[in-house]
Amino acid sequence: MPSPITQLELARAGETTPEMKFVAEREKISAEVVRDELAKGTMVIPANRVHLAGRLEPMAIGIESTCKVNANIGNSAVTSDIDAELEKLHTAVHFGADTVMDLSTGKDIDRIREAIIAASPVPIGTVPIYQMLEELGGEIEDMRAQHFLDMVEHQAKQGVDYMTVHCGVLLEHLHLSMNRVTGIVSRGGSLIAKWMMSHRKQNPLYEAFDDLCDIMRQYDVTWSLGDGMRPGSVADASDAAQFAELDVLGELTKRGRERGTQVMVEGPGHVPMDQIQMNMERQAEVCDGAPFYVLGPLVTDIAPGYDHITSGIGAALAGWHGAAMLCYVTPKEHLGLPEKEDVKQGMMAYKIAAHAADVARHRPGARDRDDALSKARFEFDWNEQFRLSLDPETAREYHDQTLPQDTFKSAHFCSMCGPKYCSMKITQDIRKMAEDGDLVQLGTTAE
Amino acid sequence: MPSPITQLELARAGETTPEMKFVAEREKISAEVVRDELAKGTMVIPANRVHLAGRLEPMAIGIESTCKVNANIGNSAVTSDIDAELEKLHTAVHFGADTVMDLSTGKDIDRIREAIIAASPVPIGTVPIYQMLEELGGEIEDMRAQHFLDMVEHQAKQGVDYMTVHCGVLLEHLHLSMNRVTGIVSRGGSLIAKWMMSHRKQNPLYEAFDDLCDIMRQYDVTWSLGDGMRPGSVADASDAAQFAELDVLGELTKRGRERGTQVMVEGPGHVPMDQIQMNMERQAEVCDGAPFYVLGPLVTDIAPGYDHITSGIGAALAGWHGAAMLCYVTPKEHLGLPEKEDVKQGMMAYKIAAHAADVARHRPGARDRDDALSKARFEFDWNEQFRLSLDPETAREYHDQTLPQDTFKSAHFCSMCGPKYCSMKITQDIRKMAEDGDLVQLGTTAE
Repeated sequence: MPSPITQLELARAGETTPEMKFVAEREKISAEVVRDELAKGTMVIPANRVHLAGRLEPMAIGIESTCKVNANIGNSAVTSDIDAELEKLHTAVHFGADTVMDLSTGKDIDRIREAIIAASPVPIGTVPIYQMLEELGGEIEDMRAQHFLDMVEHQAKQGVDYMTVHCGVLLEHLHLSMNRVTGIVSRGGSLIAKWMMSHRKQNPLYEAFDDLCDIMRQYDVTWSLGDGMRPGSVADASDAAQFAELDVLGELTKRGRERGTQVMVEGPGHVPMDQIQMNMERQAEVCDGAPFYVLGPLVTDIAPGYDHITSGIGAALAGWHGAAMLCYVTPKEHLGLPEKEDVKQGMMAYKIAAHAADVARHRPGARDRDDALSKARFEFDWNEQFRLSLDPETAREYHDQTLPQDTFKSAHFCSMCGPKYCSMKITQDIRKMAEDGDLVQLGTTAE
Repeated sequence: MPSPITQLELARAGETTPEMKFVAEREKISAEVVRDELAKGTMVIPANRVHLAGRLEPMAIGIESTCKVNANIGNSAVTSDIDAELEKLHTAVHFGADTVMDLSTGKDIDRIREAIIAASPVPIGTVPIYQMLEELGGEIEDMRAQHFLDMVEHQAKQGVDYMTVHCGVLLEHLHLSMNRVTGIVSRGGSLIAKWMMSHRKQNPLYEAFDDLCDIMRQYDVTWSLGDGMRPGSVADASDAAQFAELDVLGELTKRGRERGTQVMVEGPGHVPMDQIQMNMERQAEVCDGAPFYVLGPLVTDIAPGYDHITSGIGAALAGWHGAAMLCYVTPKEHLGLPEKEDVKQGMMAYKIAAHAADVARHRPGARDRDDALSKARFEFDWNEQFRLSLDPETAREYHDQTLPQDTFKSAHFCSMCGPKYCSMKITQDIRKMAEDGDLVQLGTTAE
């Protein structure tokens, strides 16, 4: 038995690391619960030892901790540069991103990633196949397993905390995607599929899985087992291709844990509301409770431009039914690369979804902020109401737009109803009119 | 037995009216189903005979028809005028509002309502207590039942198709609201409660219920039985006050139907996700399947400025579990009177919610538009994709923002991934590489 390196191995060895203590305090659960969950593999703390030596504040992802939100940033060949990406990072973290993925596929990938890791207090994830493809000059057919292993090691050295790798897309399952409405919609999954078609050989990342584990273990990089076959339309949801890959991910979860690496599993995609609970439960069963990290899912395909909402609905349901982390979707999804304002809108929709999920799961304390805000609302304590809001600036701006005069800002009403129709003001009048016990008596004596 | 007037009475008499035929065609169900549902009271067609003589296109609301969306417009004492309200009506209908409520409480109420009814192809709802209060000079204590009866008749004559009346708030239930975090948050409900507290008498609208039925029947105004005790915070959801009133609404549903009037029932409000299904099922049982018309519900209180999203999540769940109509909530909720852009944002969130509900309920044909849009997406038919979008202008604008050159507009990628990483393009390459049967063979022979 080698000496423990990863949080998983340390937990199994009965050690309570500073990282476990940090997340326990943040989550208001005991460090023992954190350690036990880590040891079982039902919680991960994606914390690359390099990033941990820098600015990283450890983050727990798992069903026993609050529902997390990831924000995707990164440039594409078509648009964006390093300053724009750092601004997106800042915006995402400001609005509460629990992790950030750098999905850059354009120029200056290394400089952008290094700058992001150096600046980020939250775990950073990547999809290493993108940069590998850049270095191959864009021809996926040229890939050999060693190219990929080298890239994973390169990024691990930079301090990447978790990596999406599409090990679960197998040659024998490709035919299951051929009649789909939207085919393969995972970028990494489609690249691997193309490689397999060209070479008529098995997925080299699947075959190199154990070697990948060994590299990732050295830095404690957490797996995010990619779902190359995730549905890209509600028509393709919960199909044979998706679930064939899920079974492979279940097998890899087990193998990854055995080799000491922490494992998350990625999930759909586009799923009608009535299939979401089933999807969450099936993943938990097949992958032995590994933290499920879902992209939405979008509950309808008909609203490009508003997919932060179509997917926010699905994400809230997914979180309620057990997803540990929600990957945000921005209004630009399916249309273009998100910019700063899109990052903000995506974050807001997903902070709402994650919090609504925590409330629906009855997490201890989850509703405290709701109750405090509602109390402030009832008491016309506008400043406190704004302070407790997910986005105080926007709430204040909307309120002040139609009540611009300073004298109105502490008013016992807003412009929605005006003073005469404010139900909360009227309720307070009623309460003043009711003496102690008075109303209870009315309740029993009324005709 | 008087001769039948309302759609309910006509359906019971076995008549298939032009209105029934119209909505049957629109809903792609048979006119017999419409008639049967109307006769049972599980569907309503809010169609005031006055408005029907004007521009009204009848609309079905009920569990056997698609999920509907209502948009609230109307001025307040603080802001807005007739032109602004007509612009909001136009915006709401343009983005798919199935009904519109005029909640004006400011100046020129009659002129605004008449203009709205004259211009509107969709059913118009009101809350008559607002205008009545204006005419009383703002003192609810001065109300007598006759004031209210007169106002209902006045608005019925104008052509209002459905009216929210808070008959279900009873004196003996007031004490149940006293310890709530946010008290009574229905404007009409709080006004009635204040009246009852002042006079220590039963709700006069409850006592005048049969007389109100008689007026409404003459014009075929549909009841929207107001939920004065709806929860205004997640803390107050599903409490004794809410359900005590629901039982009263169940009784009034029965009485309203007996007197020949069509009846809808209003519902919450603020409800955590895990209580929504229960709320929908309880209403259906208590109110014998009367169409349920819900306001959201918001699934968390912490996001003022984004309550179209917090409530869109709840609305989608409500629609899935049986709500017949969703009353939109705009980003301005709790902060100010919605303006035109807020109307648009509220409509978009709710069209998404209603459609996602129809998809989750497996309504025949509900998914056709999703499938067609996804097919266009896969084929890079951008124009068709935009055409099928809920908001084509916004989708096109977002797409073009980062791919401004004309040459790119028909490109087989967008700026999100760029040409090298477009999974749909790669999938098409893969499909070209696969000959007939080729992949199935791979599927069976791969190691």
